[in-house]
Amino acid sequence: MLAGVRALVFDVFGTVVDWRSGVAREAGPFLQRHGGDPARADALADAWRGRYAPSMEEVRSGRRPFVRLDVLHRESLVAVLPSFGIDPATVPQAEIDGLTLAWHRLDPWPDAVEGLTQLRRHFIIAPLSNANIVLALDMAKRAGLPWDAILGAEVVQAYKPTREAYLRTAEVLAMRPGELCMVAAHPSDLAAARACGLRTCFVPRPLEHGPSAGPPPGPGEAWDATAADFIALARMLEPSAGRLKDPSEASL
Amino acid sequence: MLAGVRALVFDVFGTVVDWRSGVAREAGPFLQRHGGDPARADALADAWRGRYAPSMEEVRSGRRPFVRLDVLHRESLVAVLPSFGIDPATVPQAEIDGLTLAWHRLDPWPDAVEGLTQLRRHFIIAPLSNANIVLALDMAKRAGLPWDAILGAEVVQAYKPTREAYLRTAEVLAMRPGELCMVAAHPSDLAAARACGLRTCFVPRPLEHGPSAGPPPGPGEAWDATAADFIALARMLEPSAGRLKDPSEASL
Repeated sequence: MLAGVRALVFDVFGTVVDWRSGVAREAGPFLQRHGGDPARADALADAWRGRYAPSMEEVRSGRRPFVRLDVLHRESLVAVLPSFGIDPATVPQAEIDGLTLAWHRLDPWPDAVEGLTQLRRHFIIAPLSNANIVLALDMAKRAGLPWDAILGAEVVQAYKPTREAYLRTAEVLAMRPGELCMVAAHPSDLAAARACGLRTCFVPRPLEHGPSAGPPPGPGEAWDATAADFIALARMLEPSAGRLKDPSEASL
Repeated sequence: MLAGVRALVFDVFGTVVDWRSGVAREAGPFLQRHGGDPARADALADAWRGRYAPSMEEVRSGRRPFVRLDVLHRESLVAVLPSFGIDPATVPQAEIDGLTLAWHRLDPWPDAVEGLTQLRRHFIIAPLSNANIVLALDMAKRAGLPWDAILGAEVVQAYKPTREAYLRTAEVLAMRPGELCMVAAHPSDLAAARACGLRTCFVPRPLEHGPSAGPPPGPGEAWDATAADFIALARMLEPSAGRLKDPSEASL
């Protein structure tokens, strides 16, 4: 199924961690402190995330030089606060910074640490996320995500889903694109990875947008693999199934 | 002593791993296979490493665009083989590639894994090495080095000891330079880090150049800290000694 794959690279927000609950957990007290409605914490998380793609598009289009996601997250927060009845000019900078760092403190889905720990025995595992390095690092250290390296947009100075984000990551790993497998809950990410020659694995995360978000999208198409969660993926990829090349066989 | 330090960044070749023994271990059989003298394995390691600084100087000076260390290592190997009675044109490319990868398979000094594991409880730990990402990653995975992230020359596209190598690494970590401590066995590396505002820790590695290399250089000057090895460093930096700020206090 994934013969020849030596590295599993992961989308992070939504696929490895539950961004919505984590952001809302810190947004509630923030709203309370600054005259907003703490019951709108989930809505703030959603609105903030809603600016994620457009903020990166400025960079992807070349209209803006690469800046790391922490910077975009902060700008997006400032931009959405007025819709929650808060004038950002009245909020101390340290408070804005502090809430922006909520993205560094997201909790993993319940299977993530155990699944990654198992997968790490047989594969190089790394985030291929739009998160910047210290964001992914802080998150991993807090949550115990056992990455072999922190890869992603900042390392390659390109945001997904541009081709550069996937192809330069393969180059950094000194691998052919087909030796990487992109693992994600988002078909758009997988489609872009596949167009670059990466292998693909879909892991649904039905709670990404909250319990009342309606039925999650299905896989959409036939990916190289589909697994219910990371533990199921690890079981599927056990080398005893005889599908894998020795991952210790490094290339230059 | 190191108050306010949140990240320890490490030189790798010589400081964390024993490059000379590791390279010689693979150079011996290579020399044997290709008509050289296997007794000259240590000499090949030394000659190869002798080209390390000059090869990077081409990049540091701007005469050559950034290329990763694996590429420089391979070129340097090809350049030194004639001195060992081997015409590189007669050696299969895969053999040259294979020996170049010896740098991915170096053993850590005996205290390194235990010391890093202890230090990791209280600090972000990462290589700040001229090794490229996959080199440091392969080495860490094989040896069990518990890095929080793989930083270094390739991430910041600059080789030590240029200022960019240190300052861009601090920027990636979203820290002030003084929140990083450079740990190295080489005073020149520490001096360059200190000139950029990093804190410094000297760890002597008297066997780096082999058992008959004569007395190792002393620390040379007064660094912020000096420790006999990484375990001693971890003991010295235990937060119970009351010298440290909470390393979980992330900054943007």
